[in-house]
Amino acid sequence: MPELEMTPVPLQAVSIGDGFLGRRVEVNRRVTLPIEYEQLKITGRIDAWKLDWEEGQPNEPHIFWDSDVAKWIEAVAYSLVEQPDQDLAEKVDRVIDVIERAQQPDGYLNIHFTVVEPEKRWANLRDWHELYCAGHLIEAAVAYYQATGKRKLLDITCRYADYIDLVFGPAEGQKRGYPGHQEIELALVRLYRVTGEERYLNLARFFLDERGQQPHYYDLEAARRDEDPDNWRSKLDENHTYNQAHLPVREQSEAVGHAVRACYMYAGMADVAAETGDETLVAACRRLWQNVTERRMYITGGIGSTHRNEGFTFDYDLPNEMAYAETCAAIALIFWAHRMLHVDLDGRYADVMERALYNGVLSGISLDGRRFFYANPLAAHRGVNPLPHACRDIPGADFHHRRSEWFGCACCPPNIARLLASLGQYAYSRNTQEVYVHLFIPSSVDLELDGHTVQIAQETGYPWDGAVRFRIESREVASFTLALRIPGWCRGAELAVNGEAVAVDPLVDRGYVRIDRQWHPGDRVELSMAMPVVQVEANPHVRQNVGCIALQRGPVVYCLEEVDNGPDLANVILPRDAEPSCAFEDKLLGGVPVITGEALRRNPKGGDGALYRPARPVQMERFTFRAIPYCLWANREPGEMRVWIRAA
Amino acid sequence: MPELEMTPVPLQAVSIGDGFLGRRVEVNRRVTLPIEYEQLKITGRIDAWKLDWEEGQPNEPHIFWDSDVAKWIEAVAYSLVEQPDQDLAEKVDRVIDVIERAQQPDGYLNIHFTVVEPEKRWANLRDWHELYCAGHLIEAAVAYYQATGKRKLLDITCRYADYIDLVFGPAEGQKRGYPGHQEIELALVRLYRVTGEERYLNLARFFLDERGQQPHYYDLEAARRDEDPDNWRSKLDENHTYNQAHLPVREQSEAVGHAVRACYMYAGMADVAAETGDETLVAACRRLWQNVTERRMYITGGIGSTHRNEGFTFDYDLPNEMAYAETCAAIALIFWAHRMLHVDLDGRYADVMERALYNGVLSGISLDGRRFFYANPLAAHRGVNPLPHACRDIPGADFHHRRSEWFGCACCPPNIARLLASLGQYAYSRNTQEVYVHLFIPSSVDLELDGHTVQIAQETGYPWDGAVRFRIESREVASFTLALRIPGWCRGAELAVNGEAVAVDPLVDRGYVRIDRQWHPGDRVELSMAMPVVQVEANPHVRQNVGCIALQRGPVVYCLEEVDNGPDLANVILPRDAEPSCAFEDKLLGGVPVITGEALRRNPKGGDGALYRPARPVQMERFTFRAIPYCLWANREPGEMRVWIRAA
Repeated sequence: MPELEMTPVPLQAVSIGDGFLGRRVEVNRRVTLPIEYEQLKITGRIDAWKLDWEEGQPNEPHIFWDSDVAKWIEAVAYSLVEQPDQDLAEKVDRVIDVIERAQQPDGYLNIHFTVVEPEKRWANLRDWHELYCAGHLIEAAVAYYQATGKRKLLDITCRYADYIDLVFGPAEGQKRGYPGHQEIELALVRLYRVTGEERYLNLARFFLDERGQQPHYYDLEAARRDEDPDNWRSKLDENHTYNQAHLPVREQSEAVGHAVRACYMYAGMADVAAETGDETLVAACRRLWQNVTERRMYITGGIGSTHRNEGFTFDYDLPNEMAYAETCAAIALIFWAHRMLHVDLDGRYADVMERALYNGVLSGISLDGRRFFYANPLAAHRGVNPLPHACRDIPGADFHHRRSEWFGCACCPPNIARLLASLGQYAYSRNTQEVYVHLFIPSSVDLELDGHTVQIAQETGYPWDGAVRFRIESREVASFTLALRIPGWCRGAELAVNGEAVAVDPLVDRGYVRIDRQWHPGDRVELSMAMPVVQVEANPHVRQNVGCIALQRGPVVYCLEEVDNGPDLANVILPRDAEPSCAFEDKLLGGVPVITGEALRRNPKGGDGALYRPARPVQMERFTFRAIPYCLWANREPGEMRVWIRAA
Repeated sequence: MPELEMTPVPLQAVSIGDGFLGRRVEVNRRVTLPIEYEQLKITGRIDAWKLDWEEGQPNEPHIFWDSDVAKWIEAVAYSLVEQPDQDLAEKVDRVIDVIERAQQPDGYLNIHFTVVEPEKRWANLRDWHELYCAGHLIEAAVAYYQATGKRKLLDITCRYADYIDLVFGPAEGQKRGYPGHQEIELALVRLYRVTGEERYLNLARFFLDERGQQPHYYDLEAARRDEDPDNWRSKLDENHTYNQAHLPVREQSEAVGHAVRACYMYAGMADVAAETGDETLVAACRRLWQNVTERRMYITGGIGSTHRNEGFTFDYDLPNEMAYAETCAAIALIFWAHRMLHVDLDGRYADVMERALYNGVLSGISLDGRRFFYANPLAAHRGVNPLPHACRDIPGADFHHRRSEWFGCACCPPNIARLLASLGQYAYSRNTQEVYVHLFIPSSVDLELDGHTVQIAQETGYPWDGAVRFRIESREVASFTLALRIPGWCRGAELAVNGEAVAVDPLVDRGYVRIDRQWHPGDRVELSMAMPVVQVEANPHVRQNVGCIALQRGPVVYCLEEVDNGPDLANVILPRDAEPSCAFEDKLLGGVPVITGEALRRNPKGGDGALYRPARPVQMERFTFRAIPYCLWANREPGEMRVWIRAA
């Protein structure tokens, strides 16, 4: 365990090179960020900041529009760190100018509640998104300031935060409310860190402390609106679980309700705990982490088992076709995991971060960077739609769940853009004596260690290849610990320092192999992780996956697609003693290792048309299956998809 | 095939004796009908006919309330045929008096559109239920007249039907609309049959003929309401499939949309076809029948795969836990099957009628007759709710899908009551030379055959026992054909006439063994159907049931319940070579054959807590499973339930 506090390496210090992730980051910058601007523009979200919308006009500003623009600004900010882009920077500056003019004299800054329903400011914290939007503006401001040194948006959001700090608080005349959609908690901690202004940290803590207290703020405010507190979303929000306000946060042990709200809140709890040393918050985070990752998380790192509440249901309930597994929720899980990693430096947090990144997050965006999934189910069948309010009964069943160019509720596209643009900061953490490598990405990192400037280069074909090479690029000798994560999926790792084998096990502490030595320019470390195809099973309590296995190689979960394997994937059986093999195919999906092997399939044509009949011995035929990484599904012809495959 | 037209034996001619069904009919009369009256009373449905509701008062009459009362009257009518009941009859007569006063001078008769929204009469046929309510009133009137000879309600509904016939029709100034919730079509044919008034038959045919024609009536009426025709129920109603108005009825081949509406309409089509000899209607019915029963029906005879449209999705899509399988839909399937039986006398229609009756219909009511299922899923797990708008994310997951005393939309309780009260009419059909036995129920039936009055007694322990004995009870000699159904589930039937074996196969025609002879008083026929426990498989295209079997014995589908087998039923495996046995248990659930046998179960306690891990050889333990008839589930402690069990 590191003795000194670890912090993420700032984005400026990391440069990502070419490779699987590097190319996704590149597409994000070249394609996704510009098309998202276009979408924000054509849907009215940019111009809405002009506050000139009037009743009866189209494009009525929605309560969460501010956040869509803010997340895009934040994404551009990160992107500018790695790659200056005049055009994107100018676009952002122009948007910030408009935002500046939208700020009210008292500091308030929200489109909808300024032009559409000004009389309802702060009237419904439970259902509306003012504090959520404020949080995203703050995050954007911090990121843009850190990226460019430009203070305008930071100053704007400080004024807004100061105003919020006047409105909310424990004093007479202040509101004791807190956001229905959490986000501002973690944003205020970021604002505190960049400004040093403790009021922001205290306000974040206030929002957490008030949550779930009695008398319940949401009931009181509902009464003020003359609404029946129980008459909301039918029984979806049993006892305020929908937005995790059913109990004070320190008493929560079970992840409930809307998954994105939940993980943003847990991330904020970890942030406040990190700053305040509040062990009761840390303990709640650990309990909730265990509940989510041991009972309520898909193998893809997706969370949220149903569209009904866009969130959690109950332990071990993980339906595949109707999985919600919102892209934003997997991203939120990464945010939380990354923070937990700096509370409890333990590889299991990075394992989940990696699981979500390579599977449930990357599935959220098409390979060309132009289309997005909101829901990321683990099985697809024509006619089945895991989204809410959407159809499942189309005659002819020609519907396929496919990525969309945009959404009315467009949270996911800019969220994945900001994650990809800031990927570097998730790869390394450091204090003055140690550097921890969490993610294996071709990259170089500059650090201050042992009083020296140290540059380390990382080369790897990960996640397709388990060999990772590090090289000390700096010209000075320095003593420090280089700690490399040994992923939870890894069953055999070999290590060599300057070509000499080093036993891994004695050096492993909580998921990291720690190499403590005096490093010289040109020193090399080679980590070799065996990356066989593994047949994974789910806990037998997961009734949806009983009798099934999933194929995983390294951190990457695979799936079968109809385009490779024909239809009726439910009838495919993988023999448990099968030894699938893996070969890299350059031409497929940008270059990808494909898992192939022998499988059995009940020939559905063997049926006589009867819907029910006495069971007969099953006629099986052999065929060679092909599995591709789950995150790349739905980039070719539409059809069935399955992660969990029957095993025999 | 019978050469003369067959008709159902009227209810008056059939007397049901003691036995499994007889006891359910008895409970229906003694318990269910009175408590339903109480529910109708306390919820305001009875008093609403007084038309004295005023804005601001509680119990605002809903658009389908009329039908709830009507179905209850119809159920009482049938019940009075078999068992006079002064109290019930007086209750009905009092209600009819109030209904009479509710009729408007022009004949119109609807609570909601008289007292709540009188200006909206006939303004939205697509979404509101005026014609549906009218249909149920007509059915009630016909049944009550046939049961009691009392004409008052019949005359009321004739006046109403006459008024409807003025409003709707092809002539200038008439509306070319048709019901959004079908029902009146079949009701008008009943009214025609009892009154001989051809206008009613023609009106039924008109409603069918107009359906789905272009320009589309529902679009025209939406435009008249200044509504966007596409802005309804989001994409649920793609192209008017929700209420089967997407195509002219004669062009329909695929069962789509709301399952109850669909089957009421198909029943109406069969009725009109039977009266008019319209072969195009018959052909459409046959195509739709094939689609439903070969691709879209649960093994329980339930139909409707999702709560989203309370209806059909696509071929072979039959999810178990989230099955909607509304009680009313299984009843509607029986109505349709019964009519098809008189169009095409073929045992496959009676097979489906029987399948629905003993499984998906009877599951809809508790053994004590006091509680009702709306949705009849084929698997249950704590926390899972197949109903719409209901919660699936209760912390602690202590929710169980259980029968309810009543529903806001209370269609199912009086529907099952009217089916049970009229069960006798489904058992036999006849013409002047033949009698067909469709259902095996202890009963006696009086018929005119060959110019004689014939009385036949049927004795059986069906569905628990495959032996059925018939005895000619009348005192005259008569020549006729006695045709006994050989059910589709039956793999071995033996027949004896007066103790002498008769070869079955040569006498079987389309599912019935036809015994044509001169019958003497005291003649006996014994049909013995072997009733082993059968492991049934679903068509392999049903992805939800791949690798699973269901246990069936005779027409009865079985299930495992947690109370008998412990939790984690997904982990139970039935060896395919298992030979489960069956023993009658007097004390259980009113006396029921229980299937037991050896099964395997993965011990879920063997897990190490990990949610995902490399697959390991599975540790199985043997145990003796107990399965009970599906229709009797949820009559003991709450817990898991499963019809489809993994097989190995």
